[in-house]
Amino acid sequence: MKGLWLENNQLQLRTDIPIPEPPPGESLVRVLRAGICNTDLELLRGYYPYTGILGHEFVGVVEQGPQDLINRRVVGEINAACGHCRFCLSGQPTHCENRTVLGIVNRHGAFAEYLCLPINNLHLVPDDVSTEAATFTEPVAAALEIQQQVSLSANDRVLVVGDGKLGQLVAQTLALTGCDLLVVGRHQDKLAHLQSKGIKTGLADAVTERAFDISVECTGNPEGFATARRALRPRGTLVLKSTYAGLLSLDASSLVVDEITLIGSRCGPFTPALDLLATGQVDVEPLIQARYPLTEGLAAFAKAQTKGVLKVLLEIEE
Amino acid sequence: MKGLWLENNQLQLRTDIPIPEPPPGESLVRVLRAGICNTDLELLRGYYPYTGILGHEFVGVVEQGPQDLINRRVVGEINAACGHCRFCLSGQPTHCENRTVLGIVNRHGAFAEYLCLPINNLHLVPDDVSTEAATFTEPVAAALEIQQQVSLSANDRVLVVGDGKLGQLVAQTLALTGCDLLVVGRHQDKLAHLQSKGIKTGLADAVTERAFDISVECTGNPEGFATARRALRPRGTLVLKSTYAGLLSLDASSLVVDEITLIGSRCGPFTPALDLLATGQVDVEPLIQARYPLTEGLAAFAKAQTKGVLKVLLEIEE
Ligand SMILES: [Zn+2]
Ligand SMILES: [Zn+2]
Ligand SMILES: [Zn+2]
Ligand SMILES: [Zn+2]
Repeated sequence: MKGLWLENNQLQLRTDIPIPEPPPGESLVRVLRAGICNTDLELLRGYYPYTGILGHEFVGVVEQGPQDLINRRVVGEINAACGHCRFCLSGQPTHCENRTVLGIVNRHGAFAEYLCLPINNLHLVPDDVSTEAATFTEPVAAALEIQQQVSLSANDRVLVVGDGKLGQLVAQTLALTGCDLLVVGRHQDKLAHLQSKGIKTGLADAVTERAFDISVECTGNPEGFATARRALRPRGTLVLKSTYAGLLSLDASSLVVDEITLIGSRCGPFTPALDLLATGQVDVEPLIQARYPLTEGLAAFAKAQTKGVLKVLLEIEE
Repeated sequence: MKGLWLENNQLQLRTDIPIPEPPPGESLVRVLRAGICNTDLELLRGYYPYTGILGHEFVGVVEQGPQDLINRRVVGEINAACGHCRFCLSGQPTHCENRTVLGIVNRHGAFAEYLCLPINNLHLVPDDVSTEAATFTEPVAAALEIQQQVSLSANDRVLVVGDGKLGQLVAQTLALTGCDLLVVGRHQDKLAHLQSKGIKTGLADAVTERAFDISVECTGNPEGFATARRALRPRGTLVLKSTYAGLLSLDASSLVVDEITLIGSRCGPFTPALDLLATGQVDVEPLIQARYPLTEGLAAFAKAQTKGVLKVLLEIEE
């Protein structure tokens, strides 16, 4: 089969990859559509060691698996858990000590014609969610993780820093909580997407200091972190939603003096993410900026790496 | 009156300081005993700008104030709040936007014959707490702040990093929660204090990685932070109890991947601190390593700055 293969920081389109055979407990999924995410770009830059097929945001059709899933559209949770470690046993499979992660850690990913995932990881895509929209299930779920970690109410002043792919989804999901939300970025056109949904936006350089109860860092750069930090009131909470290249330098003493909470946030729940897509409460179409067939995957990555570009999709099967 | 005065990173014993006159709402306190804390040493090194009398850990006798306090021994909360800002109005006076802080921010401190503090900040010292023990009320309260921020149970594996002044008090107060506690440091003699109270101790270099639910950083140095971070399981909580010189570099991506919570922790509640001292549940006597009269305050500071020394007290009035 064809697939986008990463090896030694080089991405190549291979056509000689064997179709995988699902081990017991796993399904074979024919991939329809997949999304390129910042994590893919970071893997390409060598931030984490990985060799194999990239990709973790996908929609596919089950070819081998339980009868009730065959020929149905599915999305899949990306962490394949062992089921028996202390984290699996305490209901935290995304932190399984022995996990593989689709297209990220020791498991071939979704930028190929087929992939395998544990049956338990798969979720049926509701009929009223388009295949394109469903490719956003994983990042919408990741955005919803924030609400699993931090309780939010209408009284909370919340700042989202970043108007990129992640910031857009974080902002839309946070807006649904009814919190007092402001999103800041550096791109008027991206902020306009959010304004059109009634979300307040502003420029990152003009954030009021010490004014927010919660800030969510979605840029992955030190300037974004500094903005998120400065914006917080004492005893505020800074949610780290992005990863960073290298080490981050911060004024830890000020975290002590102001008793700030910093919390890292990664993968989230798929079921409510699919619900939000089905009911149109999260609108992902405006984020799609280009579509490429799998055979033009290298061009797709070049596009995804262009500054200011939001989501690039790979159309693996028409 | 006499006092230890900090100006331009120079500490001097002055004898010409006027006895302060308490403004409305404040008491005049004659200082009996005071303790030198790491914050004092940091102020001396110029980490924060401050000019005036140093010192914030003290026991004194009320000379001017409400009738029921006159001639009674008191300790005092160090943050003097405005009473009308958003933090004061929401019950968080230690984060008052307009606060002064005894011997730290815009308010003369306790290393002098007299000090002033708002009446509301004062707490009577119970008869069964010695004056020496009561000088530890403020740092014991700071240690108890951890329990206000993080819920602890017998199932929680908790690591305290640091066997200095702060680590000793944090360890003793955490042990009272019944959590599964380990304290690590670099000094066998200091760890021995804790062992004698039935607290498990170990060497900082031999901490099991990814094993603890909660770690408390009490060293104020980057190596201590690294130990506290490495020891945490995914979704664990790192309590920052120490301040740091300059910026701290950390792997923020790993905080995201492991969904770690970092929480800064500062001043805590005086009433339970006094209770613990009164009932002997926290034992501070072994921490006292030297006593100096106020007139030998510079020698007291030299001693406090000596590596490995725990608490140095100033005997201001016999
Ligand atoms: Zn992703
Ligand atoms: Zn597991
Ligand atoms: Zn102190
Ligand atoms: Zn105030």
